[in-house]
Amino acid sequence: MNVFTPTKRSRVKRLHERGSYDEKSVFEILDAGLIAHMGYVIDGQPYVTPTAFWRRGRTLYWHGSAKSRMLMEQAKGLPVCVTVTHLDGLVLARSGFHHSINYRSVMAFGHTSEITDSAEKIAEMDYFLERVLPKRNPSLRPMTDQELKASKVIAMEIAEASAKIRAKPPVDDEEDYALPIWAGVAPVTQVMGVLEPDPRLLPGVPVPSHLDRLRPGKRLDLLMAEAAKVGA
Amino acid sequence: MNVFTPTKRSRVKRLHERGSYDEKSVFEILDAGLIAHMGYVIDGQPYVTPTAFWRRGRTLYWHGSAKSRMLMEQAKGLPVCVTVTHLDGLVLARSGFHHSINYRSVMAFGHTSEITDSAEKIAEMDYFLERVLPKRNPSLRPMTDQELKASKVIAMEIAEASAKIRAKPPVDDEEDYALPIWAGVAPVTQVMGVLEPDPRLLPGVPVPSHLDRLRPGKRLDLLMAEAAKVGA
Repeated sequence: MNVFTPTKRSRVKRLHERGSYDEKSVFEILDAGLIAHMGYVIDGQPYVTPTAFWRRGRTLYWHGSAKSRMLMEQAKGLPVCVTVTHLDGLVLARSGFHHSINYRSVMAFGHTSEITDSAEKIAEMDYFLERVLPKRNPSLRPMTDQELKASKVIAMEIAEASAKIRAKPPVDDEEDYALPIWAGVAPVTQVMGVLEPDPRLLPGVPVPSHLDRLRPGKRLDLLMAEAAKVGA
Repeated sequence: MNVFTPTKRSRVKRLHERGSYDEKSVFEILDAGLIAHMGYVIDGQPYVTPTAFWRRGRTLYWHGSAKSRMLMEQAKGLPVCVTVTHLDGLVLARSGFHHSINYRSVMAFGHTSEITDSAEKIAEMDYFLERVLPKRNPSLRPMTDQELKASKVIAMEIAEASAKIRAKPPVDDEEDYALPIWAGVAPVTQVMGVLEPDPRLLPGVPVPSHLDRLRPGKRLDLLMAEAAKVGA
């Protein structure tokens, strides 16, 4: 089993039974996610920016406008922390103290660099689109040279990562289980809604079959995990 | 209208039409959230930790184990960035380039401090529980002195904050609207599921009426926003 070797930076100290460092645990949580929260430092000030991301092997990628301040700084090479979180439920215990949250999260650490090679940039952005919306790209108006220039792609090889999961009922003090207090989990999921056609959609353009998978009520984390396997 | 005065740190540079700095916009997005991503720096390394939080006035609070490394560092006083993000939809355009995300997010900046006064700690933690699960606290086993000592509460007065929102159909290049490509928004929401009773729940304990509001399919962001008004 491939594992990320934790140092002080990534070792799960508190409630360490929730932590793991193997690639499978880390990649499963990452691949179920669309949005990461990117932590980086400019002039000593921390910033956290929500950003769509994708993964290939041990490398995370994200992209955006070539004029983005975050991306311009990260293109120079910065230490970053990329955190992906899935909120899975509210944990209702018999005391306030033992109320908790069910979640899956990964903190991944590494240094950023810019992908500057045009072919590689195109390949990565195509991969990302395929990974989120399989089979959509061939139906679209192709990318122009100007759009390629206006896009910046950042890569971060994962140097260290830890996964942290809580997925269980409340854990109460032993004597509190005798109390007649309702306890349990209120699950939370992120789900798709009903597709909203663009008001400027040409008349008669049907919903393409590649969007069938985005059916209302479908969990986004499962969609993302499935698509990661399709794209891989 | 009360506004946060942006500096270079919080000014929305890219797509600045998406940004705003007034308290109403900032507080609405914060109050619809349960989890924030906390950015902080230890020895030059950025960390991003998902954490439940609450707000009173211009101050954000979060809490956890007194032994948490993050909280021990923040208790000393650190510059932090607290980011709250709601993912609202995938925006499907007629070109890959114009694909986007609908979202609401806030980045709030400030310095941390610890709440050390016991009465204030209790009041804040009670407020938090009331704010997430109104009317639940009186039904619970009360907090013990030991639990109070084992808890650390961190506060951050918002020095600067910006809200950023995208909530609209795709914006395509004018000539691309003539293409017979399906475009629109695939909405995403975070919703409650069916309550899962603790396997160790005493027989005959009913679901209390204060949990009626957590009905399956209810949006968590709306629940949180409603409860913020109840608690305020």
